Amino acid sequence: MDHIEDNEQFAGLSVSKGIEKPPMVNPYAIRRPKRRQYTVHEYVEGILKGDISILSQAVTLVESTNADHYAVAQEVIEKCLPYSGNAIRIGITGVPGAGKSTFIEALGTYLVGKGNKLAVLAIDPSSERSKGSILGDKTRMEELSASKQAFIRPSPSSGSLGGVARKTRETSILCEAAGFNMVFIETVGVGQSETAAHSMVDFFLLLQLTGAGDELQGIKRGIMEMADAIVINKAEGNNIDKAKLAQRQLKNALHLFPPHESGWEPQVLTCSAFHKTGMEEIWKMVEEYMAFTKANGSFGAKRKKQNKYWMYESINEQLKNNFYNNPVISGKLADFEQRVLRDEISSFSAAQKLLDEYFKAKG
Amino acid sequence: MDHIEDNEQFAGLSVSKGIEKPPMVNPYAIRRPKRRQYTVHEYVEGILKGDISILSQAVTLVESTNADHYAVAQEVIEKCLPYSGNAIRIGITGVPGAGKSTFIEALGTYLVGKGNKLAVLAIDPSSERSKGSILGDKTRMEELSASKQAFIRPSPSSGSLGGVARKTRETSILCEAAGFNMVFIETVGVGQSETAAHSMVDFFLLLQLTGAGDELQGIKRGIMEMADAIVINKAEGNNIDKAKLAQRQLKNALHLFPPHESGWEPQVLTCSAFHKTGMEEIWKMVEEYMAFTKANGSFGAKRKKQNKYWMYESINEQLKNNFYNNPVISGKLADFEQRVLRDEISSFSAAQKLLDEYFKAKG
Repeated sequence: MDHIEDNEQFAGLSVSKGIEKPPMVNPYAIRRPKRRQYTVHEYVEGILKGDISILSQAVTLVESTNADHYAVAQEVIEKCLPYSGNAIRIGITGVPGAGKSTFIEALGTYLVGKGNKLAVLAIDPSSERSKGSILGDKTRMEELSASKQAFIRPSPSSGSLGGVARKTRETSILCEAAGFNMVFIETVGVGQSETAAHSMVDFFLLLQLTGAGDELQGIKRGIMEMADAIVINKAEGNNIDKAKLAQRQLKNALHLFPPHESGWEPQVLTCSAFHKTGMEEIWKMVEEYMAFTKANGSFGAKRKKQNKYWMYESINEQLKNNFYNNPVISGKLADFEQRVLRDEISSFSAAQKLLDEYFKAKG
Repeated sequence: MDHIEDNEQFAGLSVSKGIEKPPMVNPYAIRRPKRRQYTVHEYVEGILKGDISILSQAVTLVESTNADHYAVAQEVIEKCLPYSGNAIRIGITGVPGAGKSTFIEALGTYLVGKGNKLAVLAIDPSSERSKGSILGDKTRMEELSASKQAFIRPSPSSGSLGGVARKTRETSILCEAAGFNMVFIETVGVGQSETAAHSMVDFFLLLQLTGAGDELQGIKRGIMEMADAIVINKAEGNNIDKAKLAQRQLKNALHLFPPHESGWEPQVLTCSAFHKTGMEEIWKMVEEYMAFTKANGSFGAKRKKQNKYWMYESINEQLKNNFYNNPVISGKLADFEQRVLRDEISSFSAAQKLLDEYFKAKG
């Protein structure tokens, strides 16, 4: 089967399918050999052997919007599933400017230096528009990018948050089956992506800057309460005292929050990603967290809960897609919304009328 | 039309419909007159005149699960809608024991004493099981219950959070049309109900106790960040110093939170609901909030956003109900969930298989 017919297709360079005349063929052009096609079995075998080239191509399948690719990707994922799950999954978030890339470079090289294999993924549904706002620029992760023990993949760029989150989670399964024992999932602190990331990682880390006045400026409400740790970056030079002050303030504030379900008390640490200081303490904390949550059973319980969550979340997401993309509905939605905003019809009554139309059309 | 055929029906006292023999009739029994039936026009007219008895019966219609009642209720609501919206809507939450009923009695009588008309509603989907955990016991609101200017209605008890929230919001519309210029919506601080309440009020107040150590024990994570104000109750006698300390700590903590969308900085106040002290300060703050958010336009913007939110929320809720109550799905769901939990199938693949079945069954 030809699953990947042309690599350019994924880069959006393929010619329109609506073309009528056969395309001109230049007989003098060098004919590049087609990329080797793999069967499901070959994909799985390659991934389990840790073949990075095959892993990359499998991830491309996962990210493809082509239905055939989707079907093959699902088979590959299902066969890899029993070999996944042994990695530590860490979510890393923070507003632009907090130094996420530099931090991932610092913590990542520290971990790789200790013999670990690290996959760095991202959830960023806006990346198509902003052209890779995160992880797009591998130059900020120079050392890590060059390492054979690291696999860095920018956020899949197509479609909704739900779609992007699904692809990132599936990619994580493949990476884990390929022997990566650590997975970072990066997001930009805007809210929705963090909830998605938080629902697929074991440990959620908020990277924070210290600044005059409002220490948490720009971070969406609610994210602070999700964090298992807040790490204050750029604790260096003149900034060290400020960072220590912010650390004390945040510690006091977190103490007033209700406790995490796991019983874990969120920590506040400082570091300098630029000078690569503080990485050992941060990793020691993550290890403590792992030991703590594995001992009290909350580690496994959380993973099971996450698996369940994603099943229901995917269902709900697709039910919505099917409704809102229905031509009968999409033609009337804006009008109903306006009538609701003008108080001509109650929110509930508008919803009911649209639902009646939808289910009538479905038969 | 006979919309309310038998008042007992609403109290859950009606006899089973599966009965085969005609019911025995006791010719000597006193035949109570049937309650007077109203037309949509009469309901609306009565409500707009502020007739409490008709308002009560209209609310009963809103809460009914009978399809005919539902249709009439929707007509009544739609006709009342243009007359609603002039009330201040306040959400009040706090864990059991924080003294919500006593607080509502204190603040409520204060407001009623100043000539206001106050409706007190609740969202508590658990109330069916727990038999009216909140507002069920009007004895805690003795003075308010006796007032002709107050309308107290316990949480509708049937069904899902979405259903309960819808009914509470619709009841609020009717109350506002009946001239109630203030609406309290009470919830118990367990998380989901607070999100619902927060999405239908102008001002969200968290009632808190001061205690040794963890001041926020029991409050679900995330609720603190929703609050426009935290009021520390039982600031009385020996407890006053503790309350003042908690107030200072909370003020510092809230300062570290990202700002509210409206620009409003959440306040921390103390009161004694039992001694009815602190009510004037609390109300002054609410008035400041109203003035502030009306001046910067966020008051109206928030209401519009809420109307829109509830339209989409109702649609999404019903899409889910239709899916999960489908017999094909409900028969297979548990099995798929188990396979996901045993890592035999990925969350996304399980979701896809169930969705395929559903849409195939729908045709």
